[in-house]
Amino acid sequence: MITIALDAMGGDHAPRAEVEGAVLAARELDVRIHLVGIEAALKQELGRHRHRGLPIEIVNATEVVTMSDSPAHAFRRKKDSSLHVAARLVRDGKADALVSTGNTGAVMTVARFVLGMLPSVDRPALAGAFPNMKEKISVILDVGANVDSKAEQIEQFAVMGEIYYRSIWGVKRPRIALLSIGEEEMKGNEVTRETFNLLKQSTLNFVGNVEGRDVFRGDVDVIVCDGFIGNIALKISEGLVEHIGGMLKKAIKSSLKSQIGYALSKKAFDDFRARTNYSEVGGAPLLGVRGVTVIGHGRSNPVAIKNAMRVAAELFRSRVNEKIDQELSAVAVAARG
Amino acid sequence: MITIALDAMGGDHAPRAEVEGAVLAARELDVRIHLVGIEAALKQELGRHRHRGLPIEIVNATEVVTMSDSPAHAFRRKKDSSLHVAARLVRDGKADALVSTGNTGAVMTVARFVLGMLPSVDRPALAGAFPNMKEKISVILDVGANVDSKAEQIEQFAVMGEIYYRSIWGVKRPRIALLSIGEEEMKGNEVTRETFNLLKQSTLNFVGNVEGRDVFRGDVDVIVCDGFIGNIALKISEGLVEHIGGMLKKAIKSSLKSQIGYALSKKAFDDFRARTNYSEVGGAPLLGVRGVTVIGHGRSNPVAIKNAMRVAAELFRSRVNEKIDQELSAVAVAARG
Repeated sequence: MITIALDAMGGDHAPRAEVEGAVLAARELDVRIHLVGIEAALKQELGRHRHRGLPIEIVNATEVVTMSDSPAHAFRRKKDSSLHVAARLVRDGKADALVSTGNTGAVMTVARFVLGMLPSVDRPALAGAFPNMKEKISVILDVGANVDSKAEQIEQFAVMGEIYYRSIWGVKRPRIALLSIGEEEMKGNEVTRETFNLLKQSTLNFVGNVEGRDVFRGDVDVIVCDGFIGNIALKISEGLVEHIGGMLKKAIKSSLKSQIGYALSKKAFDDFRARTNYSEVGGAPLLGVRGVTVIGHGRSNPVAIKNAMRVAAELFRSRVNEKIDQELSAVAVAARG
Repeated sequence: MITIALDAMGGDHAPRAEVEGAVLAARELDVRIHLVGIEAALKQELGRHRHRGLPIEIVNATEVVTMSDSPAHAFRRKKDSSLHVAARLVRDGKADALVSTGNTGAVMTVARFVLGMLPSVDRPALAGAFPNMKEKISVILDVGANVDSKAEQIEQFAVMGEIYYRSIWGVKRPRIALLSIGEEEMKGNEVTRETFNLLKQSTLNFVGNVEGRDVFRGDVDVIVCDGFIGNIALKISEGLVEHIGGMLKKAIKSSLKSQIGYALSKKAFDDFRARTNYSEVGGAPLLGVRGVTVIGHGRSNPVAIKNAMRVAAELFRSRVNEKIDQELSAVAVAARG
């Protein structure tokens, strides 16, 4: 059975949402959970659920990383935080995967430096999942672990993204694309033109550049870019979904007739909302570190937290890290050869 | 009266939409229009409207730039295209502003090299308008005229954007922000950190970094970034609006009850659609070139084309180019001093 170390103090609704998510995961998934955080608070929350016999164990941690802590501060000054303790459980082999809905920058830093990097990986990449028009998922990476990435690093993101997509969505030859500002090879900036050249020569199923508007089209599976770009893409999407939701609500409230209309079509809207809810997808893995790490949105509800644990378990089960290290070592050998 | 040179062969629905847009503009705005393109086609389209007495004059051009022409090809090999002829009318003082809904890359290249740059401007910038939650407009620039911009160039975008926003939306001290991946000064990549430093020291009303999700919040008026980033932001937004519209349609069609609901709330939806229709805003000005240039979306309908002409007329009337040149000369003098 897979063991997950859950940082139970990280999210905006911690530890309540985390504890409920852990209970759901322990019931529905084949996982054992180390619930890491302030023991008294966790015991109290756990007491709200029927948990007897569930494979959940509380691991005490005396500190909490907050959303306003800088990654450096969280890493250096809060060594007994739930995040650090959870990461050390993975490092020491007592858990197979780390899941946190905390401060993304802090989780990335702690994971990177407590767990360390896979030997063949230059930089870790955060892989965000975007629901697309084909009702599938397109993965974009990096969505914020790095800035100013070099072409060789973005090529590594492509290899990691390919293995991740294959493992989680069962697609044998995921279509890989490069995010740019035009389809032609020449379009883009210096780094994307160099990256295009590397990807073209690789053994990946590279289909070329995609533009921002193609991200949701579902014609490609994995989209690579520098983390600054990917983060802007992710946050713009989240902001726009929120904005459109708000406009829709306001438009509907503007007349009695449309309120009746809304009541009649409520189910359709609920479906729609569920599908634009990016956190439902279940968190973004931080690929390239030594140990499975999945970061959920700070606003995750218990279902999203359970889904993040499901993704973590699948990543461990399908040996994604071993595959990444093998393939990138082979690429490195080929490059030297 | 202001004279506009309209490239009537550029858009996806050219010349029909352009001619109808010109008729609307001639009726509703205080402008004279040079309708530039294949004379026979324009005459025929114009014949579909009551146009006697309207200040519209056809100017013949024998070639057409297509969406698949490379900017270089369009610029060097199609000197008698409607785009070139319209640009030359502005260069030669026969028109005050250039409006095109054609191939964006080609329009930018032709405008830049036929009209030339304002002496104090290093690079032109395309300013995209984003409707925000406060029911106002936030302008992002550059949305694709440049890639790999330097900090000093992005600072110029801020000055140009400020003047544009002030002139068109009448806000005295527009709030200027830098698009980045965190609010703190230290967040971002090398270029944004340098740009932050320059903007902090400027006389602009600089309010700091904004993240992707804040773009729609309406707390800032002008958002600056490199053109690669801005183009991704714009295209992602367009793609997502289309995607959400599609999902909504599908969700509603899924049951009879929600179809009735939809019929009852139709007006609300129409309002909503109009407000998420980015082309309604009326085209993006290319700031920094010598001569007012406004680029509309290729899919512009006649109303959008009229709106692009309205924006062009306002830019000319408020002497945006003179102001840009003055302020940037002053900045350059101060920097040397």
